[in-house]
Amino acid sequence: MSLNIVLFQPEIPQNTGNIARTCVLTNSKLHLIKPLGFSLDEKQVRRAGLDYWQYLDLTIYESYEELREKYKNSTFYFSTTHAKNFYHQVEYKEGDFVVFGRESSGLPEVIRESDPERCIKVPMINTTTRSLNLSNTVSIVAYEALRQMDFPNMK
Amino acid sequence: MSLNIVLFQPEIPQNTGNIARTCVLTNSKLHLIKPLGFSLDEKQVRRAGLDYWQYLDLTIYESYEELREKYKNSTFYFSTTHAKNFYHQVEYKEGDFVVFGRESSGLPEVIRESDPERCIKVPMINTTTRSLNLSNTVSIVAYEALRQMDFPNMK
Repeated sequence: MSLNIVLFQPEIPQNTGNIARTCVLTNSKLHLIKPLGFSLDEKQVRRAGLDYWQYLDLTIYESYEELREKYKNSTFYFSTTHAKNFYHQVEYKEGDFVVFGRESSGLPEVIRESDPERCIKVPMINTTTRSLNLSNTVSIVAYEALRQMDFPNMK
Repeated sequence: MSLNIVLFQPEIPQNTGNIARTCVLTNSKLHLIKPLGFSLDEKQVRRAGLDYWQYLDLTIYESYEELREKYKNSTFYFSTTHAKNFYHQVEYKEGDFVVFGRESSGLPEVIRESDPERCIKVPMINTTTRSLNLSNTVSIVAYEALRQMDFPNMK
């Protein structure tokens, strides 16, 4: 397993489906924190995840605290537009976690501010208050982390 | 303008919408080559593109040849699973073009084989014959190119 991707209360099934597909193809584990804005049985999730869903290494948590309690000794990064550091300026290693917030509102302040040095952002031009699609953001950050790790078992 | 993203005969409106959003937020120009598998008036394109569509620098071409004729002196890369080189092993510069194929079938052989040294691929684990979602692939390649350019006018 190369990377751990955490989605905090994701809202849009197609995004989670696409991210599941990226996780399978990068040998990453997906962690979903409830409540989810959709049922995992919904056809949009499966369709976006295509035939990858069966290969997905997935765990679902009742709360963020449950996840942190389970992985006490791991390094966690937080993807947020409120970060000082850019996503390509930190050094990732195998087994690290990257946490992504809701499509509508990002990560809650209490999570972001728990570890400001580990908050990372993806640069964008400064036009609006909106940002990249969630599954695109996950792909960009995951592939930078994997690039730094020299793409373990990928070709 | 930092980068030129070309979609060759895209089929799925949500992907083109998401890619349009990425283009706006990275100051990239989007080039679409007909036939498109959808109408640009369809609500899925606009919804995925959100309120970015009005800011998009977009040109539509009747053929691939029309695009190449217009940009005779530019450097073109081709994203394809048939490539020898990885996407992070080439050196991008501002104004370069990256061409992406259809969701279902990728780029036609005649385009891929026109310049094998400029073909690039995104590494994945070797499980199936399928690959990443198109908008995720575009984001991954675009952000690697932009990282190499030190993210011009982005923050």
